[in-house]
Amino acid sequence: MSRFWSPFVKNLVPYVPGEQPKLSRLVKLNTNENPYGPSPLALAAMQAELGDSLRLYPDPNGEHLKQAVADYYSIQPDRVFVGNGSDEVLAHAFQGLFQHDKPLLFPDITYSFYPVYCGLYGISFETVALDENFQIRAEDYARPNGGIVFPNPNAPTGCLLPLVAIERILQANPDSVVLVDEAYIDFGGETAVGLVDRYPNLLVCQTLSKSRSLAGLRVGLAIGHPELIEALERVKNSFNSYPLDRLAIAGAAAAFADREHFSRTCNAVIDSRERLVAALQVLGFEALPSAANFIFVRHPAWDAAQLAATLREQGVIVRHFKHPRIEQFLRITIGTPEQNQALLDALAGQQG
Amino acid sequence: MSRFWSPFVKNLVPYVPGEQPKLSRLVKLNTNENPYGPSPLALAAMQAELGDSLRLYPDPNGEHLKQAVADYYSIQPDRVFVGNGSDEVLAHAFQGLFQHDKPLLFPDITYSFYPVYCGLYGISFETVALDENFQIRAEDYARPNGGIVFPNPNAPTGCLLPLVAIERILQANPDSVVLVDEAYIDFGGETAVGLVDRYPNLLVCQTLSKSRSLAGLRVGLAIGHPELIEALERVKNSFNSYPLDRLAIAGAAAAFADREHFSRTCNAVIDSRERLVAALQVLGFEALPSAANFIFVRHPAWDAAQLAATLREQGVIVRHFKHPRIEQFLRITIGTPEQNQALLDALAGQQG
Repeated sequence: MSRFWSPFVKNLVPYVPGEQPKLSRLVKLNTNENPYGPSPLALAAMQAELGDSLRLYPDPNGEHLKQAVADYYSIQPDRVFVGNGSDEVLAHAFQGLFQHDKPLLFPDITYSFYPVYCGLYGISFETVALDENFQIRAEDYARPNGGIVFPNPNAPTGCLLPLVAIERILQANPDSVVLVDEAYIDFGGETAVGLVDRYPNLLVCQTLSKSRSLAGLRVGLAIGHPELIEALERVKNSFNSYPLDRLAIAGAAAAFADREHFSRTCNAVIDSRERLVAALQVLGFEALPSAANFIFVRHPAWDAAQLAATLREQGVIVRHFKHPRIEQFLRITIGTPEQNQALLDALAGQQG
Repeated sequence: MSRFWSPFVKNLVPYVPGEQPKLSRLVKLNTNENPYGPSPLALAAMQAELGDSLRLYPDPNGEHLKQAVADYYSIQPDRVFVGNGSDEVLAHAFQGLFQHDKPLLFPDITYSFYPVYCGLYGISFETVALDENFQIRAEDYARPNGGIVFPNPNAPTGCLLPLVAIERILQANPDSVVLVDEAYIDFGGETAVGLVDRYPNLLVCQTLSKSRSLAGLRVGLAIGHPELIEALERVKNSFNSYPLDRLAIAGAAAAFADREHFSRTCNAVIDSRERLVAALQVLGFEALPSAANFIFVRHPAWDAAQLAATLREQGVIVRHFKHPRIEQFLRITIGTPEQNQALLDALAGQQG
């Protein structure tokens, strides 16, 4: 460690994102991107911003985007916070809402960025074990805490928690912020946004990287009571006045307005998921029930790490996590029908 | 304050950026934007990224941009850090390099975001008074500290510190990081990048918002010894894996490659600055010597706040800071010759 570093830097264990390979001919099913392109209306809106106006700062508050999100969900724009990807939004929420004496709670198997944020901001945490079917049990979160966070659907399991269970967690923790990270909600779940007016302790986080196919643009958002949004705005305005560029504000707002492209592509992914799960079950795989744009599968006869390596040799990348309880699982992003078939062909070669 | 907030949020005093007015007919000389558009090569590079590939995450390391910066300065890419605007880069530097027991030092008149970062990360600081000519005195920084930061040229004064003085500060503080914030260096100063190999405690920060006319795209960078860069990478990778979107990486890299557009537009701004200063002096203004794309002026007969308000009524926006020692100054961004003339016309109306 360098003497120049702030002392905590030595102990940071940064998040490691899925590989972004330089080879474009790979079948890339490892980082849960959308197999379909973004809305043509979003591309047109960015096109209109691509010119001399880039010399000017963007709107520091991204109000055009906040309004588009508010219109989509029929809520007031003062309930919306926007940021440079949901990872940035989550970071601000951890810093601004989870630095309390009691520990933050999250599942033992979940988005692996959560403990990283805790390291960055010095937040103590406790993990809560998923049950034997890899489900979140609402009653396990009725214990002293300084906040609760979980993805819904959970990652990397893909399992959905119904809203009634989320309400039980909210009611059992009226003095804690419950952050529901809905990165994958549009692929089969029901959003908790409709609960925001009734629960001032609920913060819902979303991204445009998955269902809106804009991972390359970096836009995320949070929805909650204005009191929670104000904490995020205060942190954001003490960190970076202009986290969203002009192209991102324009493109993201147009993406929210294009409901047709959104529902058509989401439905295509959901349809492909169900077909892929059925085909994998024929090959002997077990799949957790998924409401996301990925599936979490294991095969009783094949070692997951080895299978991932073999698939990669055949040009198909999936994600394997060396974590307890899930080391025999693979997380497979839902691709186009052609990409999914390439995966199945590679697996058939395995067996033969 | 909300019971949900992390306790420190209550005391945050966020940075307030200059106004981004919705009316495009205003002569906007308040936020130091470039009056000329970005490089056509930068626009073409972004155009090439505007399509279906936005469904994919960007390169989390922005290596294409790091290489472009490294090529520009003839350095190794492992000396380059990139981020979502220099404000984000500064934030990571404050968190990763300035959290020490001894106080951070910066000038009493400087970029007003510095104390805000200190509030965000709990960093103690002491301000060091500029001399009576509003200049940084190197010898004043030879005192116990946990780090030193100043813009060069300084903001909002525009005054340049020569490299020999920066070397004196570096030599007097071998155990502290000295962060030189070069947001405005290309308008008449000499960059400290050439000192990085000799001083492992030097970190240079730059932005593409000013001399490269991409304020609307949000790209900044830092250059320093790999040991300092590693601290920034560790913090960044614990905060947001992908701070730069695909369009920003492509556009920023192309902007660094287009040296012709860069030098031509910088020279035009410098030329306009000298003409504007001369014309304002005819009207009785005093101007601090500026090496930036703005000037800092006062008039012995006019109250600065009132003058700013009157100018605004006539459609010209400049920036006034209600801070001790500088409350009778106005900071005026250098515009196109036509914009500068509009300012002079409005001022002539004042006098008449």
